[in-house]
Amino acid sequence: MLQKPSIPKGTRDFGPEEMSKRNYIFDTLGRIFRKYGYCQIQTPAMENLSTLLGKYGDEGDRLLFKILNSGDAFRDVDQACLDGGSNAVSLKVCEKGLRYDLTVPFARYVVQHRGELVFPFKRYQIQPVWRADRPQKGRYREFYQCDVDAIGTDSILNEIELLQIADEAFSSLGIDVCIHINNRKILSAIADLSGYPDRLVGITTAIDKIEKTGLDQVVAELRENGIDDRGISAIVPIITLEGGNRQKLDTLRQMLAGSQTGLQGIAEMDEILSLIACSGIKQEIKVDLSLARGLNYYTGSIFEVKAKDFQIGSICGGGRYDNLTGIFGLKDTSGVGISFGADRIYDVMEALGKFPANASACTEIMFANMEGSLRYIIPIASRLRRNGHAVEIFPEQCKLRKQFEYADKKGIRYVAIAGEEEMRSNEISLKDMRKGTQEKVFADNIEEFLQ
Amino acid sequence: MLQKPSIPKGTRDFGPEEMSKRNYIFDTLGRIFRKYGYCQIQTPAMENLSTLLGKYGDEGDRLLFKILNSGDAFRDVDQACLDGGSNAVSLKVCEKGLRYDLTVPFARYVVQHRGELVFPFKRYQIQPVWRADRPQKGRYREFYQCDVDAIGTDSILNEIELLQIADEAFSSLGIDVCIHINNRKILSAIADLSGYPDRLVGITTAIDKIEKTGLDQVVAELRENGIDDRGISAIVPIITLEGGNRQKLDTLRQMLAGSQTGLQGIAEMDEILSLIACSGIKQEIKVDLSLARGLNYYTGSIFEVKAKDFQIGSICGGGRYDNLTGIFGLKDTSGVGISFGADRIYDVMEALGKFPANASACTEIMFANMEGSLRYIIPIASRLRRNGHAVEIFPEQCKLRKQFEYADKKGIRYVAIAGEEEMRSNEISLKDMRKGTQEKVFADNIEEFLQ
Repeated sequence: MLQKPSIPKGTRDFGPEEMSKRNYIFDTLGRIFRKYGYCQIQTPAMENLSTLLGKYGDEGDRLLFKILNSGDAFRDVDQACLDGGSNAVSLKVCEKGLRYDLTVPFARYVVQHRGELVFPFKRYQIQPVWRADRPQKGRYREFYQCDVDAIGTDSILNEIELLQIADEAFSSLGIDVCIHINNRKILSAIADLSGYPDRLVGITTAIDKIEKTGLDQVVAELRENGIDDRGISAIVPIITLEGGNRQKLDTLRQMLAGSQTGLQGIAEMDEILSLIACSGIKQEIKVDLSLARGLNYYTGSIFEVKAKDFQIGSICGGGRYDNLTGIFGLKDTSGVGISFGADRIYDVMEALGKFPANASACTEIMFANMEGSLRYIIPIASRLRRNGHAVEIFPEQCKLRKQFEYADKKGIRYVAIAGEEEMRSNEISLKDMRKGTQEKVFADNIEEFLQ
Repeated sequence: MLQKPSIPKGTRDFGPEEMSKRNYIFDTLGRIFRKYGYCQIQTPAMENLSTLLGKYGDEGDRLLFKILNSGDAFRDVDQACLDGGSNAVSLKVCEKGLRYDLTVPFARYVVQHRGELVFPFKRYQIQPVWRADRPQKGRYREFYQCDVDAIGTDSILNEIELLQIADEAFSSLGIDVCIHINNRKILSAIADLSGYPDRLVGITTAIDKIEKTGLDQVVAELRENGIDDRGISAIVPIITLEGGNRQKLDTLRQMLAGSQTGLQGIAEMDEILSLIACSGIKQEIKVDLSLARGLNYYTGSIFEVKAKDFQIGSICGGGRYDNLTGIFGLKDTSGVGISFGADRIYDVMEALGKFPANASACTEIMFANMEGSLRYIIPIASRLRRNGHAVEIFPEQCKLRKQFEYADKKGIRYVAIAGEEEMRSNEISLKDMRKGTQEKVFADNIEEFLQ
């Protein structure tokens, strides 16, 4: 039974070099999240379908990976059941699904554990999610999300904190970004102003595409959504406002003077800009009134981060939601969060050469394996490891050429050789694979060379 | 649509404290694996069922979580198909399953990527696996495995390395252990000696239980397996051999003098003991001729680690396999690996109080949020974070009592308060939550207090 091995489409293996680079991103993010008091949690890969269904729209429901019940799953399935269609049958034979994002499991977690948690609850979560999307370049069926959220407070300070986190994260990773900010209350006021307060979703969905498709397409889509010329002429001047952040807010304050909601959104943005000024944020912050973000649970601030030197769309985004946990029975609980797109961040860093040279380095020094040398080199290798060095001993006594080849392919900087001569004088011949040089050092002095 | 939130049985949420402790274990293991030149890989949660089925026996096949095909999964299912039973239907509607362990995906990975890998290939992998086992205390349907393997070499040096890794790992985690070692070649010679060379699996399965159930039960099970009295009287003296490691091997060498395979197994054990003597291993190594380990793909050395001060069974184990990748088309590739049981290690450390006190600490200092203080404390907090400290600002201006309560529950050591007086003199009142003391310090001097 010989098989040509493969993995399901849209999934990936990560080899040593990719893992080192991915860990570099995850470790950097985790370290920064913790510096702001966010603690890590993990939830199971499988959630009950009742937790997941209906939370992501019809399209989302369709994209859930469902898990067949164990045991005799089809016991109660008959022809009549089959006649009901795949969807009905699947609900009869599947109770669980793979998580689709980290937001719904987070909401479920907060409600389920509300008695044990300290509120405001600040958590981060770095785990894979699964979607049965059609795989294509840059879109996978299994990918990691890195979410950081504070829930149980409506303080604008959380927005500041998340902006500081985004600022510090991208500065640490070496990516110059522009952080776009907007507020759903402003978008809501715009919908009111257009005369179609009930079409907020259609309007924001259209507005959201201005950067991708241009203003003409947005206008066309607004029209398709039934917004008339008067409405469009109310929306367009706002989403195309030019000028500095303060200037935009000042103009907007006049345009939305009649809307209590709009003015509150402006006041929130104003407070954010004001506090940011003393927070030490280095990356660019831009008030972007065309920023809408697709997800409908946002109710206040919204954010999106874009790399300046590489075109790839949003690499981080989020916002405030006032009723995320409501569906699970915990009402009036405001929260705010952002999510980092690990795959896109990886691609940006790879394209711009931002991974540190040693991000994928593993072993510092390899001892060649020569006749009769094991009892000499094992204690030396053990001592180096005790002092924190990454050390290998080539496992087989074979031609030195083959051993050097291994070290070279694995990017190991130093190869140590102990022949009879070296062993007699308590030395090691140390070859620097990068420089091509070789010299003898006393076994006790190897560590000085590894600095 | 109100739902009482829950998670599938046999799965777990990990909160902040558990995550810190689990990360402490994973980080310790990963750091040590890398010191020996093992590099991390990750494989997808979903594998093709063709990769998984038939690799774990009938019981294993039954315990695989299968994933329903996306789209119209039941299009080709009719009554005739239903009549074939759940198993046949499931294979028609499911192409993928969740990984059951890390060993088969590793073998699949090595064969699929053989062209890109540097051999001997040394990898570690820390990821969850899923099994549809009946959940019970200490047994979960989702749990992490931590595997470390070297493949593409039959050098005994890899065994030494893995024993060093186990030694260093448990020493670092503060657990005193006994590392039991044996060799499948010896077990095979014992089966020969008993007169039933073809019943190796039945014999090893019986022997394996000696510690759990005692010798009488083992003898009873051997008899059930059809081993006669002559056979049993050949097996029992070997698996009950007493004495030191060398002594056992010497006696065994005489008992198995007629078996080429047996003598080779003894020679391998001998070489391991000899090289270990110069490797600096501190934990106890015990030749245990009753150690069999259930998995049938082992062909040489086998290991099992047990905690000395806590009864919980094996917390780490593994062995050498000579044909793991054969099923995927790569023949004659020897490898050796061990797997750490993270959940059991966690339980041992918890029971023995071995987690460091700060393993679950998160935030070092929290700034209270008082009227008009934000613009004073944000820059101070930012500076502390820039220097690597974990800092929170309480998000809401509420009663100090409530703010202190939050710090207390979250285990935050210091709370900083900036009232009007402090702000005038460029100071901060610093409350030590552990000692209950409070004193004023200049804002510039806070870091000295956090040491």
